[in-house]
Amino acid sequence: MRMRKKKNAESRLLACEDYLLKSREDLLVYRDKMPLELEIGCGKGGFICQMARRYPQRFFVALEVSTSALITALETAKAESLANLRFINANAVHLPELFESGEVSTIYLNFSDPWPKARHFKRRLTYRLFLEKYCSVLTPDGKIIFKTDNRPLFDFTLEECAALSLPVTDLTYDLHNSSYNADNIMTEYEKNFSSQGFPIHRVVIHKKAENTVSQT
Amino acid sequence: MRMRKKKNAESRLLACEDYLLKSREDLLVYRDKMPLELEIGCGKGGFICQMARRYPQRFFVALEVSTSALITALETAKAESLANLRFINANAVHLPELFESGEVSTIYLNFSDPWPKARHFKRRLTYRLFLEKYCSVLTPDGKIIFKTDNRPLFDFTLEECAALSLPVTDLTYDLHNSSYNADNIMTEYEKNFSSQGFPIHRVVIHKKAENTVSQT
Repeated sequence: MRMRKKKNAESRLLACEDYLLKSREDLLVYRDKMPLELEIGCGKGGFICQMARRYPQRFFVALEVSTSALITALETAKAESLANLRFINANAVHLPELFESGEVSTIYLNFSDPWPKARHFKRRLTYRLFLEKYCSVLTPDGKIIFKTDNRPLFDFTLEECAALSLPVTDLTYDLHNSSYNADNIMTEYEKNFSSQGFPIHRVVIHKKAENTVSQT
Repeated sequence: MRMRKKKNAESRLLACEDYLLKSREDLLVYRDKMPLELEIGCGKGGFICQMARRYPQRFFVALEVSTSALITALETAKAESLANLRFINANAVHLPELFESGEVSTIYLNFSDPWPKARHFKRRLTYRLFLEKYCSVLTPDGKIIFKTDNRPLFDFTLEECAALSLPVTDLTYDLHNSSYNADNIMTEYEKNFSSQGFPIHRVVIHKKAENTVSQT
């Protein structure tokens, strides 16, 4: 689904630019030693704004490539003066350029584009090269929390984790009816799909331990 | 599917009794320091007999509760004088009584009963209490190789592994069309289902490493 282009996009973006990270120095100033968490593909920012409200002692950075979606997210953050949340108008490919190795404690992937055509598998945000990029910026006990309603994308993700020997925990094919649902924050998309009766799949992916398992 | 009772079951079983393990001492004599591999629920023994032929330097033990199925397996092994294969007429529950901790290098679970009713989940051979029993007899780098055409059972298995933080590798939803298929031995059941176009799911489950990942 392509988003309609926002009116006055440029001026609206400019009005919120203090919520956009422009340099690594920006990050260091704003973050101020708080644990760092990332959302990749935050869309209009419903999830990450809620996280920033709920956890004022953590610092959140959200990546989004769509400028139109990002404007809504930026305007929400600015309207509420959320001090522990900043945005980057970039793609996940740039992650290792944006963050230092071992700097990020948690990465959130919510309802990422499934890229259903087989030949597009390398574009999926849980393709092994992306997972490797995520792991490179995660702390040793860091984790990736992945949620989707798309079953083929979920299955693909589990195959990719196994191929890289990444440990997974907290796996459920029906998050809202599982014991893992207690502190779940629903995205807009999730509310919509869940209300139509579609189950939400969720898994927590861990960085590989030092004492690692090799493939057979 | 219940098997038809075999004619003269008792006398046929008696005729092959040298292929039945009756005591732990039997195992120690026959095994003679070879690596030990188990199949749980071998049915008529097509898979495990093929394994015993292909790998004469490994020792195989197969468990089967159905006496009727076991007779076919025993008669095959005896007819071919397979020296590195023995059977036990028992249930997986008894595993820790039959084997010592850290003794088994590989456990095979092929097309186990899916027990599709939700209330029967504790009977599935990949229910967490079974997985814990398997791990208790596995060597530190031991593994469980699980194959099924039943998707709900496969999904359940992945959830159970994640709940116990057991590392998984070599995960595929379509074994016969994957890069993992090179040395696959097909069971009778697998040939049948696969020829009807049903994909075979396969995963390798590892014993938890010392440096373990805790659940979030």
